Amino acid sequence: MKAFMDRDFLLDTESARRLYREYADMKKIPVLDYHCHINPQEIYEDRKYDNIAQVWLGGDHYKWRQMRTMGVEEKYVTGDASDREKFQKWAETLPKLIGNPLYHWSHLELRYYFGYEGNLNGDTAEEVWTLCNEKLRSDDFTVRNLIRMSNVKLICTTDDPVDSLIWHEKLKADERFEVQVLPAWRPDKVNNIEKPDFADYMKKLAEVSGVEINSLASLREALEKRLDFFADHGCLVSDHALEYVMFAPASEEELEQILKKGLQGEAVSRQEELQYKTGMMLYLAKQYHKRGWVMQLHYGCKRDNNALMYEKLGPDTGFDCINNYAPSAQLADFLNALSATDEVPKTILYSLNPNDDAAIGTVLGCFQGGGVRSRLQQGSAWWFNDHLEGMEKQLKSLANLSALGNFVGMLTDSRSFLSYTRHDYFRRILCRLIGGWVENGEYPNDDALLGEIIKGISFNNAVDYFGFDLKKA
Amino acid sequence: MKAFMDRDFLLDTESARRLYREYADMKKIPVLDYHCHINPQEIYEDRKYDNIAQVWLGGDHYKWRQMRTMGVEEKYVTGDASDREKFQKWAETLPKLIGNPLYHWSHLELRYYFGYEGNLNGDTAEEVWTLCNEKLRSDDFTVRNLIRMSNVKLICTTDDPVDSLIWHEKLKADERFEVQVLPAWRPDKVNNIEKPDFADYMKKLAEVSGVEINSLASLREALEKRLDFFADHGCLVSDHALEYVMFAPASEEELEQILKKGLQGEAVSRQEELQYKTGMMLYLAKQYHKRGWVMQLHYGCKRDNNALMYEKLGPDTGFDCINNYAPSAQLADFLNALSATDEVPKTILYSLNPNDDAAIGTVLGCFQGGGVRSRLQQGSAWWFNDHLEGMEKQLKSLANLSALGNFVGMLTDSRSFLSYTRHDYFRRILCRLIGGWVENGEYPNDDALLGEIIKGISFNNAVDYFGFDLKKA
Amino acid sequence: MKAFMDRDFLLDTESARRLYREYADMKKIPVLDYHCHINPQEIYEDRKYDNIAQVWLGGDHYKWRQMRTMGVEEKYVTGDASDREKFQKWAETLPKLIGNPLYHWSHLELRYYFGYEGNLNGDTAEEVWTLCNEKLRSDDFTVRNLIRMSNVKLICTTDDPVDSLIWHEKLKADERFEVQVLPAWRPDKVNNIEKPDFADYMKKLAEVSGVEINSLASLREALEKRLDFFADHGCLVSDHALEYVMFAPASEEELEQILKKGLQGEAVSRQEELQYKTGMMLYLAKQYHKRGWVMQLHYGCKRDNNALMYEKLGPDTGFDCINNYAPSAQLADFLNALSATDEVPKTILYSLNPNDDAAIGTVLGCFQGGGVRSRLQQGSAWWFNDHLEGMEKQLKSLANLSALGNFVGMLTDSRSFLSYTRHDYFRRILCRLIGGWVENGEYPNDDALLGEIIKGISFNNAVDYFGFDLKKA
Repeated sequence: MKAFMDRDFLLDTESARRLYREYADMKKIPVLDYHCHINPQEIYEDRKYDNIAQVWLGGDHYKWRQMRTMGVEEKYVTGDASDREKFQKWAETLPKLIGNPLYHWSHLELRYYFGYEGNLNGDTAEEVWTLCNEKLRSDDFTVRNLIRMSNVKLICTTDDPVDSLIWHEKLKADERFEVQVLPAWRPDKVNNIEKPDFADYMKKLAEVSGVEINSLASLREALEKRLDFFADHGCLVSDHALEYVMFAPASEEELEQILKKGLQGEAVSRQEELQYKTGMMLYLAKQYHKRGWVMQLHYGCKRDNNALMYEKLGPDTGFDCINNYAPSAQLADFLNALSATDEVPKTILYSLNPNDDAAIGTVLGCFQGGGVRSRLQQGSAWWFNDHLEGMEKQLKSLANLSALGNFVGMLTDSRSFLSYTRHDYFRRILCRLIGGWVENGEYPNDDALLGEIIKGISFNNAVDYFGFDLKKA
Repeated sequence: MKAFMDRDFLLDTESARRLYREYADMKKIPVLDYHCHINPQEIYEDRKYDNIAQVWLGGDHYKWRQMRTMGVEEKYVTGDASDREKFQKWAETLPKLIGNPLYHWSHLELRYYFGYEGNLNGDTAEEVWTLCNEKLRSDDFTVRNLIRMSNVKLICTTDDPVDSLIWHEKLKADERFEVQVLPAWRPDKVNNIEKPDFADYMKKLAEVSGVEINSLASLREALEKRLDFFADHGCLVSDHALEYVMFAPASEEELEQILKKGLQGEAVSRQEELQYKTGMMLYLAKQYHKRGWVMQLHYGCKRDNNALMYEKLGPDTGFDCINNYAPSAQLADFLNALSATDEVPKTILYSLNPNDDAAIGTVLGCFQGGGVRSRLQQGSAWWFNDHLEGMEKQLKSLANLSALGNFVGMLTDSRSFLSYTRHDYFRRILCRLIGGWVENGEYPNDDALLGEIIKGISFNNAVDYFGFDLKKA
Repeated sequence: MKAFMDRDFLLDTESARRLYREYADMKKIPVLDYHCHINPQEIYEDRKYDNIAQVWLGGDHYKWRQMRTMGVEEKYVTGDASDREKFQKWAETLPKLIGNPLYHWSHLELRYYFGYEGNLNGDTAEEVWTLCNEKLRSDDFTVRNLIRMSNVKLICTTDDPVDSLIWHEKLKADERFEVQVLPAWRPDKVNNIEKPDFADYMKKLAEVSGVEINSLASLREALEKRLDFFADHGCLVSDHALEYVMFAPASEEELEQILKKGLQGEAVSRQEELQYKTGMMLYLAKQYHKRGWVMQLHYGCKRDNNALMYEKLGPDTGFDCINNYAPSAQLADFLNALSATDEVPKTILYSLNPNDDAAIGTVLGCFQGGGVRSRLQQGSAWWFNDHLEGMEKQLKSLANLSALGNFVGMLTDSRSFLSYTRHDYFRRILCRLIGGWVENGEYPNDDALLGEIIKGISFNNAVDYFGFDLKKA
């Protein structure tokens, strides 16, 4: 029997252990976190935490969901109970999460950052609380030091086109911090013409860009100003949250009419919404292609399903689910429309529905080329799939249908500064899989090949693919 | 090499074997079968069987399908061949079912009830026939004694709202039988307004409830009388067979018009059907919530696909398949509509399509709360998925996306009194999975935690969740 | 650690190795390749190859996709670079395909046909090039000798109803070649009324059959002449490439009108297309039933997605993907319509979407019978699924939902004469799976049962199912 989550956690063969130590250990091979939701202001201000509940339970809707699943009252989840009480409820929840990634993530964080080797439950909560808080209050546990402790070389945040990027500017100018923090372009509000705040958002965009928006042409002009602005701040990656990758083409005239409605705050029909979004996505994709940016498409999610809780807590509070409608035919048609003029950008596809793995893997192959290794990629197992089975499934699917050796690998997608151990989790799963293949005689035991593949997926491929310059300007 | 289906069947690690023996062995931890299709009359009358073909092949459409798959003539399946002949055909079919759950179920039953340790095939059929029949004819093998031998504490049958529950009453009054047999409320015929017998069924419901049904209000009044009647008989659980969990909301006026058509035997449109069913499901769900009942939703099935055989044999004869249309968006919207007024009942979701596992797991998390541990649950792998891979997949999915520790576990869903060994099959798979996690260092080797989880999933969680009082009234 | 792809490749237990050697080794148990795309003319002319690039890269769009994925310029894929250069690019691509079936297929071919035991990569490319080409130029490596070396007993090609079958005739008459090469009936062009070349194709069909086609009746007459012609040439199997198995029934009058449009080169609506195809499929299926032919349905594919590349290279060049729309309800309704008159032919279902496995498995069970063992079968994991995970998934699904022991097993679906090792790949995976069950005590270690099952799936079941007469006429 292996010990509970020791240094060889998940590394079940000698090959797995060797490959991990040589080519994947975070201490040796750094982390590039190209997609997350952390707040750059907290990095700039080098925030410190009072206690582990603040870090863990302050905004982590993964944990909130599970506490609600345990029947814990909302008071202890997002309400006004004390941090210590909330932590106790979480500690009591954890053991029932046998087999859940939160069980592993939590203990990986306890081990990596706090050196705690036991298991957290109702009985050990006090001991863990004391240990973690003592460390968190020391200067070694500021946000910047947590990032350094995690051997992170570069971080991409998630930013709205109207954002001032002021914290990115300050961070860039700050010589005391050696890690690059770059913005990423997330123009969901530009796309969401069906939302009640669309017209207001357009006004904000007009203001920030200095372009009056009253037509497709002026909207595009405004966007290009902001794209340039983001590019000036080192942005190399965009991100879209889509219901699904739709393809409902329309003429310029039709799009112009639909946009007019949106600008005037009028409702658009479902068909108009899909047409507008298709047109906008085609336009933006071509912009990304021109600029050499990567386009990330996240889809397959139905958000804010609990109206009662939404009223109380707003979005991103743990009430989202998989939307299982995502026709691969439309995804292929969308990419084909870009392919017609040879303007397919580097693209990473993430679906929340694990059943989409195979369809995505086969779509990738239809649009490769342009001299880029794996111009189209499937993103690492996303959100609800970000667990041992989900990651292994995604890795195997990608290996079967595309070229695993080119994969850009893991990202945290997180709001927390302790989440970098998810990279470690991913790398252990990767080394377990590849180590297993080597042990079974399915791939040669040749470190020249294996080292390049594993270091590539852990770090190097992402550097090459996104085109990051790792020397801080 | 492990011996064929010995006492350690499926228990591949020392931890798996230990956990099974301590916390899951049916001899030690009893069975609570909260959903099945057995006939309470047969329990009351304490039926005996002449031979193993009667028990196994009398109504088991799982076995019929496989015999037809082997090219066996219908005469030997449901026709007028002798029981011995039918048994021979089944025995000859079985070896080709390598890897099929029927192979395991059949041999688990032979071992558990009859002590037969060999394998059944054409050559051993005579030996097995003689052995089983001898035992079946003894008084130890009456229906009641089979239930006792299986260490069953409580059974929920499946009953129509118009049912008299006479056999449940008799069983309750019968002091010679210590196992509780409770009704479960299955109002499919109330829902199925598109069926030709809807108007007739409404008449029956009116008669039984003593309420003239000519409006939504009077239909609801009639239903509430029957709900009360079922509650008086100890009912705590409902069940619905749905094509998919639809959400097509309509006004009370619209519903009133649609119901009128149904009551007059007029055809309703597909859209009206969906609206009526949505309205009825919302109404009933709120009733269940009010009464503290559990709502079971079984969906993803397309029934009676072989028109020729349907004419000859009727429903539930082995001609059903997976329907792969089940939009998770509508499922979420349906539950959200209940959530708006905080009337989400305890709910168990079962889809026949294994691809729905992940979508279901993420929907659960959006509607937890109300002070109930896992108010929303995913049901154990259902029907065509009730095999080693399917159960392991469901367990892993539930562990990844919800709290496995709260799971209410297995049910037989069966028409046979020998099917309780499916609980044993499930528990072995559960202990194999959890034992594997412990062996791999993925969960602490801590029996205080593990014992509670495994006993919980095997028995205790269901008692708590449904709110059963195990002392027979 | 097992050596890299040695003789025990994938055979991870003693039982797996024993079963493979006794009952599955291609040297001992021959190959029946009932579905492929090789050119019978090349067999008749006993083609020889100049070099390994011709065999491997001449028409293999699987490899082309992966080279494009590596960012290789099209010049080295389908362009005018030299064969040696193309081979180099392929060799450099291969190591990144860790976990990909092409990695295994390529090395299985190198081992089986050329005795090369190393691994192919950029550094070993020259060595492999020299070794293979030397052998390919010898008389032992003509097409006929490659077939003999692969222990193939019978091959079914893929042929259009208007094909003259001249090469099949010549092969039949050629006493120097002992392997049967039979045509298979693939009438996609008869079905595809929405395509611009439909009217032209009808003219060709009229000409070849000698029947003027101006109505449903005359189209059917023409088809029956061709069906007879194919039957006279030993055809026992048909094949259809369908978007999905649709069911949109229409009256004879409606079909007549739709066909008229098609014959006149007029466009048909989407609904008319679906109706025509449904009508044609019902008609053809009944023809197959009458003649005892097997109907193969391949669906779930969206083809030619890259318009730019399609213009340059045409179809079947590596730009296809999974289409994830395939309602199981329509599949069941289609088969039910045939069942109504008891005219369900022997049918093999293949979906490109691996998520369809379970739905297919349950549909099969609804239409078994007619005295045929597994009259309905799920085909072996197809195209993008033809890898270790995909094949194992299909085998397990079939075992769980139907009778694995009746399975007709593997086919190459290939254009290459080196692809027969895919049968070896399949058999290793089969023996690994079944060997594992035996080792785990899930099936008796009884060679009388196991040998029959494995030899059956490897070879014998297909002979029986298709009704081939293995003695060359």
